[in-house]
Amino acid sequence: MKKSILLAIPLACIVFAACNKNKEVQQVSSNKTQDSVFRRGKKITNNNFKGNAYLQMLVNADSTNQTTVGNVTFEPGARTKWHLHPAGQILLVTDGVGYYQEKGQSKKILHKGDVIKCPPNIVHWHGASTDTAFVQLAITGREKGETVWLEDVTDEEYVK
Amino acid sequence: MKKSILLAIPLACIVFAACNKNKEVQQVSSNKTQDSVFRRGKKITNNNFKGNAYLQMLVNADSTNQTTVGNVTFEPGARTKWHLHPAGQILLVTDGVGYYQEKGQSKKILHKGDVIKCPPNIVHWHGASTDTAFVQLAITGREKGETVWLEDVTDEEYVK
Repeated sequence: MKKSILLAIPLACIVFAACNKNKEVQQVSSNKTQDSVFRRGKKITNNNFKGNAYLQMLVNADSTNQTTVGNVTFEPGARTKWHLHPAGQILLVTDGVGYYQEKGQSKKILHKGDVIKCPPNIVHWHGASTDTAFVQLAITGREKGETVWLEDVTDEEYVK
Repeated sequence: MKKSILLAIPLACIVFAACNKNKEVQQVSSNKTQDSVFRRGKKITNNNFKGNAYLQMLVNADSTNQTTVGNVTFEPGARTKWHLHPAGQILLVTDGVGYYQEKGQSKKILHKGDVIKCPPNIVHWHGASTDTAFVQLAITGREKGETVWLEDVTDEEYVK
């Protein structure tokens, strides 16, 4: 009987350790799925973006609503050109690590849960950090006109 | 030796079962954390809501921006009164199961990833389903005035 217990306890410990290892893997995989509330959408092919970025429009403008909502995913290193929105823009960060910079200001580092209120006609850019992807909801008023796209964000500006 | 194995195997099975039970609990708890990109905020105490609902304002209106964003969490059974927004409202469902109904239309069941574009001045209500909580981002234009609150959603209307 004593021998039985001596054998049973280490066996139980091995099973317990194996269980815990599994749990860790499962958590990471559950997190990955969990992050994507909205679809990643299609790769952006216009030249207002550098690197790989994806857009899923969630809300388009219509005759009674001039506010659009897009889910934008930037792969590491990807970013917009410098640009401005005549009615401003709200960014809600839903995943990853990104950058946001207004002309003449220092670059801000953004994380999940951060919110940016970009005022009308302020020249700015946003994108992923160098090594982590970045996902944002972009809420843009169109009542005063479309986005005005400007020059590229140089590699020097991007890493500064 | 044979006896030892006979005792060890059931013991290992008990530990394995206990492990798995633990994993399930952890997953649910991990989902809860993961779902919350934005804070749940404070309990809503005004009488425009029935049941337990929570609000975290993410963006307030200011002199250059009339669009507000709030993160609203409804516990099961909780809902708004009937109401309307003079400039309309966009709802982005980020978690759970909820209901949305416009006056005279049938009730819609909402899930994570769903988007509602509620036109200006359309009387409607929204809230959690009977047995699952519901989390939404509410994007509301204030340029044409504040929300107009109307009568309660009766229990009969809620379950219909």
